[in-house]
Amino acid sequence: MNSFGHIFRLTSFGESHGKAVGGVIDGMPAGVKIDMDFIQRELDRRRPGQSDIVTARQESDRVELLSGVFEGRSTGTPIGFAVYNQDQHSADYDMLRNCYRPSHADYTYTQKYGIRDHRGGGRSSARETIARCVAGALAKLALRPLGIEIHAYTSQVGGIVLPGTYTDYDLSQTDSNSVRCPDEETARQMIDLISEVKAAGDTIGGVITGVARGIPAGLGEPVFHKLHADLGAAMLGINAVKGFEYGMGFAGAAHRGSEMNDAFIVRDGVVTTATNHSGGIQGGISNGQDICFRVAFKPVATLLQEVDTVDAEGNPVVLKARGRHDPCVLPRAVPVVEAMTAMVLLDHYLLNKTHHI
Amino acid sequence: MNSFGHIFRLTSFGESHGKAVGGVIDGMPAGVKIDMDFIQRELDRRRPGQSDIVTARQESDRVELLSGVFEGRSTGTPIGFAVYNQDQHSADYDMLRNCYRPSHADYTYTQKYGIRDHRGGGRSSARETIARCVAGALAKLALRPLGIEIHAYTSQVGGIVLPGTYTDYDLSQTDSNSVRCPDEETARQMIDLISEVKAAGDTIGGVITGVARGIPAGLGEPVFHKLHADLGAAMLGINAVKGFEYGMGFAGAAHRGSEMNDAFIVRDGVVTTATNHSGGIQGGISNGQDICFRVAFKPVATLLQEVDTVDAEGNPVVLKARGRHDPCVLPRAVPVVEAMTAMVLLDHYLLNKTHHI
Amino acid sequence: MNSFGHIFRLTSFGESHGKAVGGVIDGMPAGVKIDMDFIQRELDRRRPGQSDIVTARQESDRVELLSGVFEGRSTGTPIGFAVYNQDQHSADYDMLRNCYRPSHADYTYTQKYGIRDHRGGGRSSARETIARCVAGALAKLALRPLGIEIHAYTSQVGGIVLPGTYTDYDLSQTDSNSVRCPDEETARQMIDLISEVKAAGDTIGGVITGVARGIPAGLGEPVFHKLHADLGAAMLGINAVKGFEYGMGFAGAAHRGSEMNDAFIVRDGVVTTATNHSGGIQGGISNGQDICFRVAFKPVATLLQEVDTVDAEGNPVVLKARGRHDPCVLPRAVPVVEAMTAMVLLDHYLLNKTHHI
Amino acid sequence: MNSFGHIFRLTSFGESHGKAVGGVIDGMPAGVKIDMDFIQRELDRRRPGQSDIVTARQESDRVELLSGVFEGRSTGTPIGFAVYNQDQHSADYDMLRNCYRPSHADYTYTQKYGIRDHRGGGRSSARETIARCVAGALAKLALRPLGIEIHAYTSQVGGIVLPGTYTDYDLSQTDSNSVRCPDEETARQMIDLISEVKAAGDTIGGVITGVARGIPAGLGEPVFHKLHADLGAAMLGINAVKGFEYGMGFAGAAHRGSEMNDAFIVRDGVVTTATNHSGGIQGGISNGQDICFRVAFKPVATLLQEVDTVDAEGNPVVLKARGRHDPCVLPRAVPVVEAMTAMVLLDHYLLNKTHHI
Repeated sequence: MNSFGHIFRLTSFGESHGKAVGGVIDGMPAGVKIDMDFIQRELDRRRPGQSDIVTARQESDRVELLSGVFEGRSTGTPIGFAVYNQDQHSADYDMLRNCYRPSHADYTYTQKYGIRDHRGGGRSSARETIARCVAGALAKLALRPLGIEIHAYTSQVGGIVLPGTYTDYDLSQTDSNSVRCPDEETARQMIDLISEVKAAGDTIGGVITGVARGIPAGLGEPVFHKLHADLGAAMLGINAVKGFEYGMGFAGAAHRGSEMNDAFIVRDGVVTTATNHSGGIQGGISNGQDICFRVAFKPVATLLQEVDTVDAEGNPVVLKARGRHDPCVLPRAVPVVEAMTAMVLLDHYLLNKTHHI
Repeated sequence: MNSFGHIFRLTSFGESHGKAVGGVIDGMPAGVKIDMDFIQRELDRRRPGQSDIVTARQESDRVELLSGVFEGRSTGTPIGFAVYNQDQHSADYDMLRNCYRPSHADYTYTQKYGIRDHRGGGRSSARETIARCVAGALAKLALRPLGIEIHAYTSQVGGIVLPGTYTDYDLSQTDSNSVRCPDEETARQMIDLISEVKAAGDTIGGVITGVARGIPAGLGEPVFHKLHADLGAAMLGINAVKGFEYGMGFAGAAHRGSEMNDAFIVRDGVVTTATNHSGGIQGGISNGQDICFRVAFKPVATLLQEVDTVDAEGNPVVLKARGRHDPCVLPRAVPVVEAMTAMVLLDHYLLNKTHHI
Repeated sequence: MNSFGHIFRLTSFGESHGKAVGGVIDGMPAGVKIDMDFIQRELDRRRPGQSDIVTARQESDRVELLSGVFEGRSTGTPIGFAVYNQDQHSADYDMLRNCYRPSHADYTYTQKYGIRDHRGGGRSSARETIARCVAGALAKLALRPLGIEIHAYTSQVGGIVLPGTYTDYDLSQTDSNSVRCPDEETARQMIDLISEVKAAGDTIGGVITGVARGIPAGLGEPVFHKLHADLGAAMLGINAVKGFEYGMGFAGAAHRGSEMNDAFIVRDGVVTTATNHSGGIQGGISNGQDICFRVAFKPVATLLQEVDTVDAEGNPVVLKARGRHDPCVLPRAVPVVEAMTAMVLLDHYLLNKTHHI
Repeated sequence: MNSFGHIFRLTSFGESHGKAVGGVIDGMPAGVKIDMDFIQRELDRRRPGQSDIVTARQESDRVELLSGVFEGRSTGTPIGFAVYNQDQHSADYDMLRNCYRPSHADYTYTQKYGIRDHRGGGRSSARETIARCVAGALAKLALRPLGIEIHAYTSQVGGIVLPGTYTDYDLSQTDSNSVRCPDEETARQMIDLISEVKAAGDTIGGVITGVARGIPAGLGEPVFHKLHADLGAAMLGINAVKGFEYGMGFAGAAHRGSEMNDAFIVRDGVVTTATNHSGGIQGGISNGQDICFRVAFKPVATLLQEVDTVDAEGNPVVLKARGRHDPCVLPRAVPVVEAMTAMVLLDHYLLNKTHHI
């Protein structure tokens, strides 16, 4: 069950301290121009060590596509890839072999499999998201000629919330600061908060907002694989995510239908909606408006503090994390949210082609 | 793409005003005692016409299992079923043939398929959830001998929010009132609000909380099909759902790791956690604690008021819904949330058996 | 695991003596004209009681589509259907409750599930193929406007083999006799043989040949889901099938490459092949030539003779089948072979659309 | 569509002259001892250059598992692997860039994708079966403690047919000669034939027989994924395969039921069958007897002779293959048949666990 997608489908592999993290991308349409620099840049956006507010681990994370590309274009055959692990300090994790870090997957993996690779969190490490960024970059390359654009940005860190909505900001500015928030002033506050939290050996959660523009009407399956259900599953599959909402989301629960409905109007001869409380999806199917959604991340579980826990025999243990860890996962999760969005949209774009002879 | 589940898998069919709504349940384990009364009761919980605060449509919604059961037990072969439609006033929908109701699926279906059954919303009608309630009831029957119990209840209607958390209430009281809230006083307020909204020809949204108890540790796939990702996809596939969160959800985004982590302790010789901010799932896998989550529903899109919209040619139209509609979807959605939860849990229970020889 | 197909997908249900046999067809393209008379005629071709050389059971097998069709066209939503069972003599099977017929599925079902519906073979009955004929008829309706035609015919019964190959006969004559062989003289011999076998209380096997014409080049996945692999799986999933070959098949194993290769030539300005030893598929993908294949059926296991067997406790038992049985399955299997072929071809036609943006 | 299997699932990637061939094995049960020497030995059995009667290409084909194994045992997480390509003479294929070899996939790939990697056959090369051998070796390691044994051997080359059946030979002798036939005398004749064919610049087809012993009763899904249907799909997905039959196969079509049925008897207190015409599978489900089947391979399409063909513009071309090619694919296909058999059996073993609570 390590595959994602119906037609455009990523199967990922790899542990944090194993030999490599990688995957196979199946269903990549044929004939798409493959821009390797773009793919590497996307990967660099999630790379450790890129700023002061993320983990100091240094991993170059160079990706090589092993198949499926010929003379600069996709051939329609599967694209295998691997990113070899390098900066592993496995000894930092020796004390975890037999004990359970709070709110990590140590205990649940052991219960499930009876065996686990404890080094660096093994398969439960967010290092697995490398595979998603590669697949997402390929999906973006396929979507680009269709005029589909995908943005994500940090809209909340702890109690600091970016005011307004995505239309209030220039999303091309997202990467202009290390926290990936499109507003300079809010970004500064977020960075300060993360620095303070980091100094305290603590961590902090937040929210990432995702936006997709240029989506044609008609994408999404109407019942179980509604477009937002597949988007939600994609987001909830990212490490540390605790919630997903789209359009008006939870806030809409407090409102009346007369306030929430999006009236149809004709603008420039085209049917459109006067508002977009629906978040671009109605009845599970895109309506051509912008798709927008929010993703809640819990604070990283690894604290640079002493924590009380138990070992596999139930004995009390005091743990103090060594290693290098993110005080806040959001800056590096922004490209992962974009990647999963691109994968879902391309998948549904292709799937939608099968509904007609 | 009208199937849900990996091993225990429902494929549903049916339109609101077609001949029948039904489905096939594949992967039902063999040898489970089938209590037909229980299945019908579960279906009755979502039935129209059950109280003053839901739609007045009268549909008896009797289910018959057409296969897969022999001498009172499941045989392991697929269970086909159909619920024939009866109380259809298709003429009420004639004016919709060629125009788009705001925030409904009329426009998106037309864009996607080029053709749509406009009567009663066709496939986009919540009548499809009948199939889920049948599958969910069967899943509950399979889970019951394992000691797994599933509850859902209305925890918010509009601005009225049930205080505290699920442990503060006796969830067996949920069905003692028509809004399905386990607190008598809050239920009364919710009912009053729905009545008021209904009188105004308006509708109102809300939140349903889901709880599963007795879950063994180890359920859930660690990467793309995390237990909460599959639960989230299940919930987001229900009509009118706009958000899903589990454990501390969006609220946890504002907190620090030192506040959110669930310390491991030993209680009665067993490893457990002191708190349950994780909502029973860590690293995508159940940890044996209660699973709890929240599902946001938007207000029903059909208002009993005049609304301005456009037809397929872009001409302005004024619509006034006839027919009988729910002012608030939550009371009838509670059993659907339970059903989808049961399906996901049974599916992952069965899937988990394949991880060992 | 009662589903077949990737995009165009049938999920079937039903036991021989249960309430109904039916299914859900998912992925039917939208906008296809639905000819109900054609569908019923296809079903009638597999109906019991249609001639002297098939079982005398009388089942009218009327199909009703319960969803997915609106004003005579497919809507793109799933098509549910059920054929209710009628002419059941369940008491004829009482002696089978606790004992195992040779070369039937009685023993293996019991070993697998621990419980079985013994009446009429339950789920293992060829009555399940009703669902395939309905799905196949719908697939034929979708393929017809594309110019794709599918034929199957009986090419061998026991030792009587139709000489030559499919191009030697007018396949539109297949249904002109009860054994469904396009050559009148060979058909007569086959019918005589079946009559003789039937009189002896015995049964006989044979071979069905399948042909598809008008297939565009490019259908089929190149590695695991080669077009012939999916066709083979489709055929091997039909009751009593023991072998599948396409093109030169087993006979080609005795030949040299210089004899078997199909030279490319240009005819009327179009690239084509001088011969078709490949059976229309090269590297797993259709090349535009006719697809042809052969399917081997074993003799029906139910004899109208006394047979020695054992019961569940291992005691010797003498069985004599009551009920009404086919002395030869081939005449009624011809439409099933066609149905499965149509399903696979439509499925791959739709899948192939996803390989390009 | 480059994945195979339901639970134990291989997704493969790679072109003949690309950077690597590899894959991801998902669903490997946790806790299985991983014998790397065994895996490499299995791979060596399909390696080019191993004898005079196979291609002279020298590829060491060393496999490295990149994930999913920890301290010598499988962890239940996906196993990624890659075999890097080395002995590529891509220039040998320059003349193929724009023209179609007869009975190869050159034409069909071009029709399907509009682009193809022509070097060494690209994705259509049998080099892809490396991935299957790795997955098959892992499946064998998982099946071994269950007492399940898998054998394949060459039973026919051209007109030379190994007499009798598999029970007449000691299958452990299969690898004692280069053609992989368990009878020394027949093997010598086969080798002589292949040598003669090779000297003539020609190629030859044949048949491989597969046998699985120690299979528990109950494996296989009864309708669409019958055990033999999944085995057949597995075999038909191997390059150059044109037919599959199990048990009495095509020969059984000429017989009567009274000759073909396998009587149940009790031997040593256990229900078994007196004969095994069924090939170990009844109603699609294993019955505990040996599973046996036959796989037909066409002669390799690449001849070391001048052949007439056409280019993409339809101009006549004379091709003469350079490069190093197999005169007969069977010796190197034997381990591939075993690998696919092991994958299917493990997959169904795991799937069967989900049929009970």
